[in-house]
Amino acid sequence: MENAIEASGTRIDAVMELVRGRIAGRSLTPGDRLPSIRALAGSLGLSTSTIVEAYERLVAEGVIVSRPGSGFYVAGALAPLSMAEIGPRLDRAVDPFWVSRQSLAADDTVLKPGCGWLPADWMPQAGLRRTLRQLARAGNADLTDYGTPLGLPPLRQLLARRMAEQGIDVSPERILLTESGTQAIDLLCRLLIEPGDTVLVDDPCYFNFHALLRAHRARIVGVPYTPSGPDVERFAAALAEHRPRLYITNSALHNPTGAVLSPVVAHRVLKLADQAALTIIEDDIFADFEHVPAPRLAAFDGLERVVHIGSFSKTLSASMRCGFIAARAEWIEALIDLKIATNFGGGRMGAELVYGLLRDGGYRKHMEALRDRLGHARREVGGRLRRLGIVPWVEPQAGMFLWCRLPDEIDAADIARDALKQNVVLAPGNVFSLSQSARGYMRFNVAQSLDGRLLEVLSAALRR
Amino acid sequence: MENAIEASGTRIDAVMELVRGRIAGRSLTPGDRLPSIRALAGSLGLSTSTIVEAYERLVAEGVIVSRPGSGFYVAGALAPLSMAEIGPRLDRAVDPFWVSRQSLAADDTVLKPGCGWLPADWMPQAGLRRTLRQLARAGNADLTDYGTPLGLPPLRQLLARRMAEQGIDVSPERILLTESGTQAIDLLCRLLIEPGDTVLVDDPCYFNFHALLRAHRARIVGVPYTPSGPDVERFAAALAEHRPRLYITNSALHNPTGAVLSPVVAHRVLKLADQAALTIIEDDIFADFEHVPAPRLAAFDGLERVVHIGSFSKTLSASMRCGFIAARAEWIEALIDLKIATNFGGGRMGAELVYGLLRDGGYRKHMEALRDRLGHARREVGGRLRRLGIVPWVEPQAGMFLWCRLPDEIDAADIARDALKQNVVLAPGNVFSLSQSARGYMRFNVAQSLDGRLLEVLSAALRR
Repeated sequence: MENAIEASGTRIDAVMELVRGRIAGRSLTPGDRLPSIRALAGSLGLSTSTIVEAYERLVAEGVIVSRPGSGFYVAGALAPLSMAEIGPRLDRAVDPFWVSRQSLAADDTVLKPGCGWLPADWMPQAGLRRTLRQLARAGNADLTDYGTPLGLPPLRQLLARRMAEQGIDVSPERILLTESGTQAIDLLCRLLIEPGDTVLVDDPCYFNFHALLRAHRARIVGVPYTPSGPDVERFAAALAEHRPRLYITNSALHNPTGAVLSPVVAHRVLKLADQAALTIIEDDIFADFEHVPAPRLAAFDGLERVVHIGSFSKTLSASMRCGFIAARAEWIEALIDLKIATNFGGGRMGAELVYGLLRDGGYRKHMEALRDRLGHARREVGGRLRRLGIVPWVEPQAGMFLWCRLPDEIDAADIARDALKQNVVLAPGNVFSLSQSARGYMRFNVAQSLDGRLLEVLSAALRR
Repeated sequence: MENAIEASGTRIDAVMELVRGRIAGRSLTPGDRLPSIRALAGSLGLSTSTIVEAYERLVAEGVIVSRPGSGFYVAGALAPLSMAEIGPRLDRAVDPFWVSRQSLAADDTVLKPGCGWLPADWMPQAGLRRTLRQLARAGNADLTDYGTPLGLPPLRQLLARRMAEQGIDVSPERILLTESGTQAIDLLCRLLIEPGDTVLVDDPCYFNFHALLRAHRARIVGVPYTPSGPDVERFAAALAEHRPRLYITNSALHNPTGAVLSPVVAHRVLKLADQAALTIIEDDIFADFEHVPAPRLAAFDGLERVVHIGSFSKTLSASMRCGFIAARAEWIEALIDLKIATNFGGGRMGAELVYGLLRDGGYRKHMEALRDRLGHARREVGGRLRRLGIVPWVEPQAGMFLWCRLPDEIDAADIARDALKQNVVLAPGNVFSLSQSARGYMRFNVAQSLDGRLLEVLSAALRR
């Protein structure tokens, strides 16, 4: 049956191709009448239903139009149909959007050691395909209805159990599903800060925190990051001087450094936050890459002044969007209103797919294999970079990032601009640094850095 | 093969159920060691691989934990696992969130004549299931990578062709995919208005415009809506008095009234907008419900000061999110940055599914049948409501809404509060009205109003 469908699909495609070819070759021009269904079926030796379906699809594509009672006609003058995406902008300033714009726009010919996600073939493809087939058999409402205000109940229950394992005690009613981790932080900024409020970030930190906070017209203040968390003295001084409303950080597998918050620093940060009535957003999207769980601010604090957020873009798929917020009950109520106001109902299908994948026993095995594979890549890429004099700032215990110092006072932005001309997207240090004090650093995604061409491009750029 | 998988699935499920049952029945309590895999396999007469898979899944669910070299143990004290969603809030004020919160939270036992979407069985389920199965065979990158900054190229091309049919000339490079129609308007508000700016809306208008604009701290000014568009005299007066930056409207199948903009009013509105340097967002999410296309502001204007937005939540699925913005090229660049800052990469999978459905010839047939079905429902529900003295303000030519006047100066909010106690979510007029001048009106979604219980509840409430 499948073969019959495919064979009939091929015939329909052939008819569509024929019509498109005649239009492209100008033997049919806008406004021309197409052969009648019966005539074309006869001349091609195909059934009329095949021609009907092909014409219907061409109508759906807007290539031809149907005039009831009269027949099918080539559609009129159309907007240009260039396949060209907006290509790499070689002249773009190396700003917080530099890495994201270049990486998201990159096609398969581009190396992306600067991007923040894994290659597609490192992701749980078999589980995802299985889950899609399961979803194709789900109830009607799953496929077409909006999600509930909080989002899919069994997924929130599963997340509550997972957080309990990390020592974070939260009921499913205090978990709100979002479209992404970034949207989670965005909603929290809408709730918690006003334009002009001050927000603390780590220096360096994930570059999109800068972009997001600028969109909220926040004043951003950076606190130097050490291998065991934020510099506590400087953190205390920043609280006293700037009276920030919010601090956004990663406790475990800090982006870009791969460092981990120590229990001592966690305790001191929370104590200072308490005294200053500071709210903390703990962005935990790299949690599942850890071998041994690091301390979580949310676990020490009991989700009083810490909000815990996460997503599945790094471990399951960035193509289906799903993130979450775990927070105080009264904030969840207000966040639901904000989510409805700015995005209406949530995506139920993304949550269904995440739930299907997480409940599958295969996910744990996939993550175990992935952690090993990343460990191997960290060692391999770390070794290659060292040979070029590019040295990691810390030796991360897990995750995909190596935050490295370049040799000889070289400016990483120069190297990155140079590499982009050769279709290699790098992540120069200063896109992560509010103080612009990381010009000699570069973040490497080890899973995207195994292609030999990277070494060639890097060593040529370093010699220049 | 499918059957073998299902049978083994059943055995795995049975083992999981057994373990969960022992935990629920307290014969296994937190910290207890589970039977060894070999022992349980022996006592149940199942293969060890079945037990391994069941235990793995229970670990993934957080019900049990694995201690390497020691065995499996019941997980520790967990957060409460109540299935309860946040239920209907009978005490909630009838504010702009009233209808959305109640409808989105409603389960199958609740009637939702007040909601803004079609029942699941009116949606293109077969096509959606077919498209999901196709997606399960797609390339790895489709399943796990972020979308490109603008979003899936072939979908943008298809949208450009569809807009060309409506007379809107736009290249695919000026179309940006978003997560939803609401997110499209949200991004535009971030780009085009500052806190404190004035925005014009129709009175009545879609209630979520009020909620969204409040989230942006905009000053909202309403212009009375007539059966052929906004009242032009009042529109001109509002421009002169309030100097708004933005006007948000639906040209065709206006929500909530179902009215359609006339060419004369469209022309006058655009002329006034030109003189006042006003930007207009034309929200066109109901486009595919029309039998005959109504005038579009974007077609008259050529997307100079009009931004055209849409989504597929009403015609394909609200479970997979995908919307779009068609706008001036220079705005698209800035919107990409805002989209990345606030949501990072877009959802590629939603766009893939929408593209799969729209290119299928079946979509056109589905929409033809849906338009007929809606026409039938409008006549049927309209007739029933008239018999209760509830009379449509206009006779819509298409779409799902009837905007009706209640008899005898009755307050629609009273009726809605009353109905909610009986599990019926209605949409009282004033949630749509900035001036609160629609207390005697109610919006009915005809596709959700065919259940006989609605009539009983309404007639009882009207008698009270």
